[in-house]
Amino acid sequence: MAGNTIGTIFKLTTYGESHGVAIGGVIDGCPSGVEINLEAIQYELDRRKPGQSKIVTQRKESDTVQFYSGIFEGKTTGTPIGFQIVNENQKSKDYSHIKDSYRPSHADKVYQDKYGVRDYRGGGRSSARETACRVVAGAIAKQVLSGIKVNAFTSSVGDLFINKMYQELDFSQIDSNDVRCPDSSTAQAMQEKIMQVRKSGDTIGGTITCVIQNVPAGLGEPVFDKLHADLGKAMLSINAVKGFEYGSGFCGAKMKGSEHNDLYNQDGTTQTNLSGGIQGGISNGMDIYFRVAFKPVATIMQDQETIDHEGNKVIMKGKGRHDPCVVPRAVPIVESMAAITILDHLLRSKTIKL
Amino acid sequence: MAGNTIGTIFKLTTYGESHGVAIGGVIDGCPSGVEINLEAIQYELDRRKPGQSKIVTQRKESDTVQFYSGIFEGKTTGTPIGFQIVNENQKSKDYSHIKDSYRPSHADKVYQDKYGVRDYRGGGRSSARETACRVVAGAIAKQVLSGIKVNAFTSSVGDLFINKMYQELDFSQIDSNDVRCPDSSTAQAMQEKIMQVRKSGDTIGGTITCVIQNVPAGLGEPVFDKLHADLGKAMLSINAVKGFEYGSGFCGAKMKGSEHNDLYNQDGTTQTNLSGGIQGGISNGMDIYFRVAFKPVATIMQDQETIDHEGNKVIMKGKGRHDPCVVPRAVPIVESMAAITILDHLLRSKTIKL
Amino acid sequence: MAGNTIGTIFKLTTYGESHGVAIGGVIDGCPSGVEINLEAIQYELDRRKPGQSKIVTQRKESDTVQFYSGIFEGKTTGTPIGFQIVNENQKSKDYSHIKDSYRPSHADKVYQDKYGVRDYRGGGRSSARETACRVVAGAIAKQVLSGIKVNAFTSSVGDLFINKMYQELDFSQIDSNDVRCPDSSTAQAMQEKIMQVRKSGDTIGGTITCVIQNVPAGLGEPVFDKLHADLGKAMLSINAVKGFEYGSGFCGAKMKGSEHNDLYNQDGTTQTNLSGGIQGGISNGMDIYFRVAFKPVATIMQDQETIDHEGNKVIMKGKGRHDPCVVPRAVPIVESMAAITILDHLLRSKTIKL
Amino acid sequence: MAGNTIGTIFKLTTYGESHGVAIGGVIDGCPSGVEINLEAIQYELDRRKPGQSKIVTQRKESDTVQFYSGIFEGKTTGTPIGFQIVNENQKSKDYSHIKDSYRPSHADKVYQDKYGVRDYRGGGRSSARETACRVVAGAIAKQVLSGIKVNAFTSSVGDLFINKMYQELDFSQIDSNDVRCPDSSTAQAMQEKIMQVRKSGDTIGGTITCVIQNVPAGLGEPVFDKLHADLGKAMLSINAVKGFEYGSGFCGAKMKGSEHNDLYNQDGTTQTNLSGGIQGGISNGMDIYFRVAFKPVATIMQDQETIDHEGNKVIMKGKGRHDPCVVPRAVPIVESMAAITILDHLLRSKTIKL
Repeated sequence: MAGNTIGTIFKLTTYGESHGVAIGGVIDGCPSGVEINLEAIQYELDRRKPGQSKIVTQRKESDTVQFYSGIFEGKTTGTPIGFQIVNENQKSKDYSHIKDSYRPSHADKVYQDKYGVRDYRGGGRSSARETACRVVAGAIAKQVLSGIKVNAFTSSVGDLFINKMYQELDFSQIDSNDVRCPDSSTAQAMQEKIMQVRKSGDTIGGTITCVIQNVPAGLGEPVFDKLHADLGKAMLSINAVKGFEYGSGFCGAKMKGSEHNDLYNQDGTTQTNLSGGIQGGISNGMDIYFRVAFKPVATIMQDQETIDHEGNKVIMKGKGRHDPCVVPRAVPIVESMAAITILDHLLRSKTIKL
Repeated sequence: MAGNTIGTIFKLTTYGESHGVAIGGVIDGCPSGVEINLEAIQYELDRRKPGQSKIVTQRKESDTVQFYSGIFEGKTTGTPIGFQIVNENQKSKDYSHIKDSYRPSHADKVYQDKYGVRDYRGGGRSSARETACRVVAGAIAKQVLSGIKVNAFTSSVGDLFINKMYQELDFSQIDSNDVRCPDSSTAQAMQEKIMQVRKSGDTIGGTITCVIQNVPAGLGEPVFDKLHADLGKAMLSINAVKGFEYGSGFCGAKMKGSEHNDLYNQDGTTQTNLSGGIQGGISNGMDIYFRVAFKPVATIMQDQETIDHEGNKVIMKGKGRHDPCVVPRAVPIVESMAAITILDHLLRSKTIKL
Repeated sequence: MAGNTIGTIFKLTTYGESHGVAIGGVIDGCPSGVEINLEAIQYELDRRKPGQSKIVTQRKESDTVQFYSGIFEGKTTGTPIGFQIVNENQKSKDYSHIKDSYRPSHADKVYQDKYGVRDYRGGGRSSARETACRVVAGAIAKQVLSGIKVNAFTSSVGDLFINKMYQELDFSQIDSNDVRCPDSSTAQAMQEKIMQVRKSGDTIGGTITCVIQNVPAGLGEPVFDKLHADLGKAMLSINAVKGFEYGSGFCGAKMKGSEHNDLYNQDGTTQTNLSGGIQGGISNGMDIYFRVAFKPVATIMQDQETIDHEGNKVIMKGKGRHDPCVVPRAVPIVESMAAITILDHLLRSKTIKL
Repeated sequence: MAGNTIGTIFKLTTYGESHGVAIGGVIDGCPSGVEINLEAIQYELDRRKPGQSKIVTQRKESDTVQFYSGIFEGKTTGTPIGFQIVNENQKSKDYSHIKDSYRPSHADKVYQDKYGVRDYRGGGRSSARETACRVVAGAIAKQVLSGIKVNAFTSSVGDLFINKMYQELDFSQIDSNDVRCPDSSTAQAMQEKIMQVRKSGDTIGGTITCVIQNVPAGLGEPVFDKLHADLGKAMLSINAVKGFEYGSGFCGAKMKGSEHNDLYNQDGTTQTNLSGGIQGGISNGMDIYFRVAFKPVATIMQDQETIDHEGNKVIMKGKGRHDPCVVPRAVPIVESMAAITILDHLLRSKTIKL
C-alpha cells in the first residue's frame, strides 16, 4: 500500500530509484504567495550531495533540482509543486554482483520478498538517494517557516561526542567543517576517526542532534498525532536511523519526578526544559530538541559472506564509492524532515479555532 | 485538526476525558469473521487498570468495556466496533487546585494555550486514562493476529535494568510479579525501588522492551511508512514516552559496519539480528524488538512552586492517588500499540500483489 | 478497509447496527470554544426520527443523543466528541424471514458476499438508521457554521415537483408540513400521493434540493477535492441516493456556452449563477444549490419473489413499519451532510495562507 | 489544503499548469509485478489529446508521457511511478487579455480570490490539460484490472441522445467516429451539431455513459466510501462536470418500489439491474453503469461582457483554439477515473478478510 507520502496538509510525495532516470516528487498543500529562493534550495541540496568533501562518497551527482509547477513569477501559487533531480551517474555501473545476491543489512532481500521483483541497481528505491527529494521539500518548508529556526548537527561519531549542552554551541559553525559538528575540537577528532575507519574499509555510526527555535506554542494534535510522535516518525523514516529521543530522552527514564519536572517561570517558560519544548504532545514555545541515532553504513569495503537468491553462500565485497559515515550528509536531511513536520503542524494548528 | 485516529486500514479513533462521563472509541477496518474472546479483552484491561497492586495508583475503576456494534454472534462483522468504558470515579474529586494553576511538566498550560479552553478535571484529554481505549483495540488486534506473539516487559526502572538478552528471558514470567519484569531478581529490586520512591512522595522513570515474534516478512511501506517508523510513532504517542529505539538502537550508532552487519544464514535468517527484524523499513521475518523510554510521572506528593493562569507564583502539592512509576501499567499499552501497528501493516501488505 | 469516516479536518466516524445495542460516533477536529445548543441538536434528530408523522414509518425510537466528551461547560474543547443513541426498539422483532433470504434491492446479499457474515437484523449496518449519527454531527456543524445557512427541502415526489425557482420559495415553510416541501399546494399533492402509495403497500422515490447561502468565496481544493465533488460524495453516501447534480446539472448538458455562461456583475457576483455557486471546484460566494435523487424504498408491503442463501426461490413480504417515501425524513440528513462538508472545507481553506 | 491526490491504496497525485514547463504525477500503491504496455498508455493519451480530429481544439501537443520510476524491465515494482508530459505549446501564447480580467464561468476569479495569486496562462491549474495525467494513471489501472472492462461513450450532445439501452450497443464502435458514440446514426447527427455550433462561435454540453463489466462482488466500503459515492466524486472532480447518476438515477426518483426493485434470479443475479450493479454501496457482480453531465465549454468565440480585477466592465472574446464540445475528448478521462476508482476499491476489498 502506498507509503510514499508524508504530511497531512503540507504533503510530500516522492518517487524514484537510485539508478533510474530521475528522482522527484510533488509538494501539495504549500501555502500560496510565499517567495521562493531557488538558490537556497540548491544550497541545501549541495549540503547533502555526494562528493562534497573527502569524508563522503565520491560518486558525482550535480543534484540540480528542476521545478515544473506551483511556483509562478517567484512565488508559490498554492498548487502542487512538481520537481525532479536527474540521475546523472546512473548508467555507469555494474550491478551483476547484487542482482542475484543480497547484501548484508541492506534491503535487497526484503524488497525481493515483499514485491517479488526489484530494481537491484544501487539499492533501487531503498537507496538514500531518495532523501534528496526530502531536502528539496525541507528547503521550501524552511522558507515558509521563516522566523522558525531549524538547526541540526553531528553530535557523535562512534564513541566521540560533544560534551556540551546545545546552548553552549554556535550553530553558525555547523558548516564550518566537513563533519558538520559545531564544536571544533570534537569535529577534528570525528573527522580523523572517519578517515581512519574509511582506510580500514569500514564504516561507523553516529548521532545527530536537532534544535528548533521560535516555534509558537500550540503545535501538535493529541492523542495520536502528538508533535514529537510525528517528529519521531519523520526521523525514523530516514535511511539508517535506529532511534529517536527528545528532551530528556532515554536519560529521563533514569530520573525521579522531583528532578525531572520543569518548573515554571512567571512568564510561562520553564526553568529546565527537560520536556524538550513539548508537553502532552503540544509545543510550549520553548526550544524543541531531539537526537537521532544512525547505524553504520552497511556497505563496507571488506569481504563479507552472504547468500544469493537460492540460498547459496557467496562472498561479496562492497564496490563503488560509499560513505564511511552517513551522519555529515544526513544533517540537512534531519533538518528537512523537521521543517516539513513543523510546517505541517503549524498549518494544522490553524484549524483549531474558527 | 483531528489527531485522534491511528492506523490506515485497521483504524482506531478514541474519545473521552479523564473525568467525563466515559471514554471510548471506534475500531474501523477490523477484518470480518474473527472470533472475539471478550474475557481476553477484559484481561488486558485489568493489566492496565488502576488499583491492581500496591505499586500503582489506588484510584478505583472497574474499567469494564462495553461493545455496541461490529461483533455479532461472537464474531467480527467487518463493520465498525464501537465500545465504551464508563468513568466510575469521575465525580468524587476536587479540582479547584488545578482549575486556575498549571501543574509542572503536565499538559495543563499547553491545552489552555492551544484550545483556549480545557476540561481541567484530572488532566482531561491529556490523562493517560485514554490509553485504556488503546488496550481494548490492542486486545482485539492480538486476537486477529493469532500466531504473531507480542510481549512487552519492564526492562528498567531508574538505573536498575535487566542485564540479559531478551532471548534469555521467559516471557511467561512477565505477569508473575507486579513490576512486569520477567527476571525475578531484578523485578524484586525494581519493586523495592518503586516502594521507596513512593514513600518519599516521588516518582521514577523506566523503560519497556517489546518483542514481536512470528511476523511474516514483507510488512512495512517505504519510504515514509516504514514499519519501524510507524511503530515509533505509535509508541511516542503514549503518554510520558520520551524515546524509541529498535534493534541495535542508540548503541548501534557507536558501532562499525563490520560489527553491525547481520550476516545471512543459508535459510535467509541472519546470525545477529541487530537490524531488529526490520531492514529498509520492511520486516524480514525475524524477531522485531524495540525499547521505549518513559519519564517519571509528573505528579509528585511534594510541594512544588508553579504559576497560575495569570502568572502568579503558587505552591502546589500533588493530590489524589497517582502512580509512583508508570511503567508496570504501561506494559499492556505498549503491547497494544505494537499489535495495532503490526495488524495495520499486515493488512496493508495484502494490497501489494493482486 | 475502513470506510466509516468522512471529512479531512472536521471528521465524523460512525458505528452501529440497526438492531444492535446502540449507534454512535466520534466527531474529531471540531474547533474549540464553540457554544453548543443541545436542544438544537435534538430538534434536528426529531426531524429525522421515525414516527414523527403519519407519512413516515411508525417504528418508535426516541432517538435521544447522549454526549460523552469534547463538550465542557457548554462549549467544545477541541477534543473528540463521542456520542451515542440507544436503540430502544431493537429487541422486539422477528428477523427469521431475512436471516437466510435476501430482500430485493437491499444490501443483504452484498454484505453476506463481502464480509462472509452479517448482522441481518433490520439490515444491520446497511440500515438508514445509521444516518441519525450524521444528523448529530450535522447539527453541530450547523452551529459552528453560524451565519452560513443550509436549507434542504423535498422538491419532487414521483412525478410531482415544485414548478418554481428556489428563489421564489420561503424556506421558513419547509417544516410547515409533513412532506417538508415549502410550496404548500405541491406539498398537499405530495402528501396525498404518499398516502395513496402506502395504502397500496408500495413506496415512491423523490428528490431533495439543497441551498447553502452566505458561503465565503474560496472553499474547495482542486483538482480532486473540488467542493462539489465532496458534496457529491457526501450526498451519494446517503442511503437510497441514485444521483447528484449541482447548478445547471443535467440540464446544463443540453445547453450552449452562450446560454450557460454566467456573466459577471461589477461587484463580482454573476447574473445567472448556473454555476451553482462553484467554479473550478471553488466556491465563489454565491448560493450553492444542488439536487439529490432518492430511489423508492425497497421494502414494500407486497409479495415479492426472491431467493434464499442457497439460491432457492422464496416469497417474501415486507414486515414491520417502513417509510412509504424516504424523502421527508431525508431532508435533515441532506442538510447535515452539506453542513459537514462545508465546515470541513471552511477549515481546510484556512491552511492556504500563512 | 492539499487536494491533488485521489485514492486510498492506488493513489494518484498530479501537478502542473496548462502553460508551465510540464504536467505530471505520481502513482503510489500500484501492485508489483504487473506487465505494463507503454503503447496502450500512449493510445489512451492520444484519445484525449488535442488536435486529434476536426471537432476538437486544434492546439498541438504530442502528449508523450515519460516514466521515471516504478517500472523496471517492463514490470511494476510496487514503488511509486513518476511520470511527466512536457507542455510543448506553452510559450507561444499571448495571455494579456486574461491576466487582469476574469473569463465568465471559468475559474480565474475564484483562484485569484482563494490563493491571492494565480498562473493565469491558459487557466493554469484549472485547465483541463491536467486530466492528461489522469489518463496516464487510468491506462495503467486498466492494465492492472485486466478482465474488468471499462467502456465509456458519448451518450448525448445537446438534446441529441442515443435512444437505446447500453446493452444494445457495440462498444467496439465507440472509437469508430470522432464523437465516440457507438450508435452510428446518432454519432453522425452529433457530429453535425458540433460542427454547426463551432461555426457560430459557440459550444455545447453533453453526457457520457460509462459501463464497467466483470467487476467482482464485494467492492465498496460503507457507510461513507460506498462504491458509487467514490465513483461519483471521481467523476465530479473532472472539469466541466455538473452531475452524476448511476443505475436508475434521477429517473429512479420517479418510480415506485414495486417497479424499481430488482428481483433475483436463482444464480444471484438480478432481472433488471436498476441498482446499477451496486447495492448498499457494494458491487454485486452485475454491470455497473452511470452517466455524467458535462456543461458546455465556457470559452466561446463571441464577444462577452465581463469584469477585470478592479471590477471594471470589459469586453472579452475567446482566443486560441478551443473545443466546441468537451465530451468526445472526455470519454477516456471518464474511463480513467472509473478504472482508478475500481482498482482502488478492488485493493481495499482485499483487506476485509485475513
